[in-house]
This record gives sequence, structure tokens and C-alpha cells, in this order.
Amino acid sequence: MQLKLTGADLTNYLAEVFPQIDGTFVVETLDPGAVRMRMRVQDQHLRPGGTVSGPSLFALADVTVFALVLGHLGREALAVTTNASIDFMRKPEGGRDVIAEGRLLKLGRSLAVGDVVIYSDGVAAPVARSTLTYSIPPKR
Amino acid sequence: MQLKLTGADLTNYLAEVFPQIDGTFVVETLDPGAVRMRMRVQDQHLRPGGTVSGPSLFALADVTVFALVLGHLGREALAVTTNASIDFMRKPEGGRDVIAEGRLLKLGRSLAVGDVVIYSDGVAAPVARSTLTYSIPPKR
Amino acid sequence: MQLKLTGADLTNYLAEVFPQIDGTFVVETLDPGAVRMRMRVQDQHLRPGGTVSGPSLFALADVTVFALVLGHLGREALAVTTNASIDFMRKPEGGRDVIAEGRLLKLGRSLAVGDVVIYSDGVAAPVARSTLTYSIPPKR
Amino acid sequence: MQLKLTGADLTNYLAEVFPQIDGTFVVETLDPGAVRMRMRVQDQHLRPGGTVSGPSLFALADVTVFALVLGHLGREALAVTTNASIDFMRKPEGGRDVIAEGRLLKLGRSLAVGDVVIYSDGVAAPVARSTLTYSIPPKR
Repeated sequence: MQLKLTGADLTNYLAEVFPQIDGTFVVETLDPGAVRMRMRVQDQHLRPGGTVSGPSLFALADVTVFALVLGHLGREALAVTTNASIDFMRKPEGGRDVIAEGRLLKLGRSLAVGDVVIYSDGVAAPVARSTLTYSIPPKR
Repeated sequence: MQLKLTGADLTNYLAEVFPQIDGTFVVETLDPGAVRMRMRVQDQHLRPGGTVSGPSLFALADVTVFALVLGHLGREALAVTTNASIDFMRKPEGGRDVIAEGRLLKLGRSLAVGDVVIYSDGVAAPVARSTLTYSIPPKR
Repeated sequence: MQLKLTGADLTNYLAEVFPQIDGTFVVETLDPGAVRMRMRVQDQHLRPGGTVSGPSLFALADVTVFALVLGHLGREALAVTTNASIDFMRKPEGGRDVIAEGRLLKLGRSLAVGDVVIYSDGVAAPVARSTLTYSIPPKR
Repeated sequence: MQLKLTGADLTNYLAEVFPQIDGTFVVETLDPGAVRMRMRVQDQHLRPGGTVSGPSLFALADVTVFALVLGHLGREALAVTTNASIDFMRKPEGGRDVIAEGRLLKLGRSLAVGDVVIYSDGVAAPVARSTLTYSIPPKR
């Protein structure tokens, strides 16, 4: 697998297409087949008690696999999520960012599959895991 | 299955525990084993092109099964999502609310399972489907 | 959605392509968008205690959505499963066949999505539910 | 995570509780949090064309996480699968066993979660991935 974008390109592109969430997601490292994404946790991501909400962790998993697909296909790729599974295993710790480690398991002509494990920053036991399928429409 | 709350109770309770999203989710009908939830689509739920984002649909599915669990167990229930699967099948139509039809498939002592089909308001073909498992901790 | 095959055609075709499981799966009814499939439970499907094994229920869910896809596209369709989720909610009752009620939620050009609820024959509470995605390769 | 059984114990125990599939599943290595399971592919696991069927791969994923749970809790554990997701990414190659690499992501009091990646023996690109949740009933 070969990259078409750098991590900095990706961070900028995500801010451009998702202006509402500018500053939330930062690509920390991007390598062939793998990405590490930080989610800067803010008030709107929290549940009572200070834990990060499930939908916020889902959004992080989704953007992580999207970043993997774009990183390998380039920013003109029109990938859309078709399926996701997610397991919530532990409460994220309050006052910490969450970190997603994503791996690209398949990059086919029409489908891409990526796997994500999510951690509270600096904590070893994973908070959640997720797998997402993106559909890649044929180029016109 | 017997209800412990009314739909209006539930809408108020959701606004209370999720103050950031007050006004987004409205319980339209609540019956034994079934709920119909409206998501008032706002700018922060949209993707470029005016379609509702995947994470927003996930949040709707999550709150729909949460409402089913609370509606049957009462507001003191401390249910947490442990697993979800979601399939995105069609683009939601712009300028329309999205509606979730939820069914409670299991309400056990420690696990509840609910199924959700999501539609653009007034459109017959479903936009997404999702199944979620909630864990119900034992009462202290 | 329009049918290309009858239920009897489908039962015969399944026996033809899966000779190892001839007689296990019977299409009871096939309608536009919906199928009802019986699994004749045999010794090799059982776990200690007489309950139907999880992998056997998975096989039933898989063949049910396969039948829906073939019923609507015709037997030359080369559909392959790309993703499945399954929830096991109750133990199947011993000494009863299991019945799958399948619905086709999407039949697109390249992806089909079907939903299945599984019951012990004659028992109202569902045993399991599953959603499967099939990929439909372009015709050569 | 500490082990209660050896890999050889586990292989014997699986043959004992699943007499119908004796000889199919072999625990190759068992370490804290991780297992490697071989499935000896036989005729009944094959689809036309010689590829391993989806339900057979599901059965392998299921038994792999079951082995992880038993390996850490001991053979008296009454764990049952409550949920699974599986992605089929490539056709298994004919004439080769399939190998599952399982990891235990969570071993809680009432729920265990394990992750599995499946390969054709000797081939680097994964054939499938799966995540399963087991429910662990309280000891009587």
C-alpha cells in the first residue's frame, strides 16, 4: 500500500470538508496501511460524569478509516461508509484525549475495510474497537 | 413488556441528561416494545451536500434504543451501550428530519437488544438500520 | 422489487450449489422483498443440551439473505457475503426447527443488504437477529 | 491476564464438548490474552470452487474467542456468544488450512470481548476479521 497524502495534508483536508469539527481531529502519524488519530476532547463530546460519549467515539472511528482511505487513494476519492460495528469496552477516562489506532485491512476496487482500536491517551487498556467498510464509487 | 415512562417524560429526561443536544431528539410515540424518535436535523448534523452525517445517524440509533430501555425500566436505569452495528443504505434527503423506528428485541436482566430502522421523514426507503446492545448493571 | 425465481426454484438451487447441506434449508415463502426459510435441525447443528449452535444460526441467516438476493436477481448472480452482524438473544428450544424471516432492505447495483430475525418454530420471542451485506460483482 | 488451561487442554476440551467437530480445531499456541487456532479444512467446509464457506469461517472465529475465554477462566466457565460481527475480505485459498489469530480485548465480570483475524495458512493478506462478545453468567 502506497500513500498519496501526508498526515498534515489529511488534517487540513478533514478541517476543510468538516468545518463544524475543525480542530477536533488531528492525524498524528500516517504510514502505509496505518494511521494514528487524536481526538481533542471538548465539552460537546462529554456525557455526565466527564466520559466521552459513544457517538463521539463512533465519529472518531469513522474519520480514522476515512483518513486511511483518503491517505491511500487521494483527496478526490468519494468514499462513503456503508457498514460499521463498534464495541464499547471501558469508560474513557475524563480529562484525556482519545487516540485511535487504525489499520487498513483491505483496499479493493469498490470496498475498503479498516479496523480501529481506541484508547484514552496514555492508558493501555482499550476503550473501544470498531471496524468500518467504505464503498468507493467508480471514477467517472 | 410494560412501560414505566411516557414519551413526554422521556423527551424531557433526554434533554436533562444530554443538555448539549437539547431539542434535537423528540419521542413521537412510545408503546410497549416500540418507539418512534424524531431527530430535528440542524447544521451541525450535516455533511457537504446537505446530507445527514453517519455519526449523527449513529447518535440517533443510540438514543432510540436508550429511550426504549429507559421507557421500560424507568429513569434510574444505568444502561450503557456495549455494542452496535449500523448499515448505511441510502443518502438521507436534504431538508428533512430523520425518523427512527425502534423495537426492543430483548430486555433481559443484564442485557437489552434493540433494533432501529431510520428514514428520511416522509420517504419510504430506509436510510440506515442499526442494532444496539445495552448492558444493565445490577441495582445496588 | 420483482422476483426472478419461485420459492421451489430457490430450494432446488440451494440443494444444487450446497450439496453437503441438501435438505437442511427449505424456502417456505418468497415474496417481493421477503423470504421465510426453514432450517431442518439435525444432529450436526446441535450443542450439548440440545440447543442449535451459533454457527448453525449464522449459516441460516447467511443462506436466507443469499436466497433473497438470488430470488430478485436470478440464479446467475454471483453474490458473496462481505459483512455480517448477528445477535444471539435466547437459546433456541430443543426439538424444534428454526425459522428465519428475511427482508431485503437494499438491492443496489453493487451491494445488497438484508435483515433476518430467527425464531424457534412456533415460539414468539426471537432467538437471534442478523444483518448481512452481499457484494454483487458487475456482469461480465 | 493469567491462563488457567494449556493449549493442549483446550484442544481436548473442544473435542469433548463438540464431538461432531472433533479434529477440526487445534489450538496451536495459547498465551495470556492471545491464541492461535488452526482449522483443518475438510470437504464439509468448502463451497463450489474449493473456497472455505463463510459459516465455516464464522465457526472458527466463534471457537477462537471461546477458547480465549476458557483458557483464562477455566473449563467450568459457561460462556455463551451474544454478539458477533464478521467481515469477509478475500477468498480463502483452496487446499490450505485457515488460521485464526485471536486477542482478548476485555475480560470483565459479565462480558468478554475478543477480536480475530483469519488467514489462509502461509498467506499474508487476511481472509476475514471478526469480533465476538461472550456473556459470562455469574457462578452459582
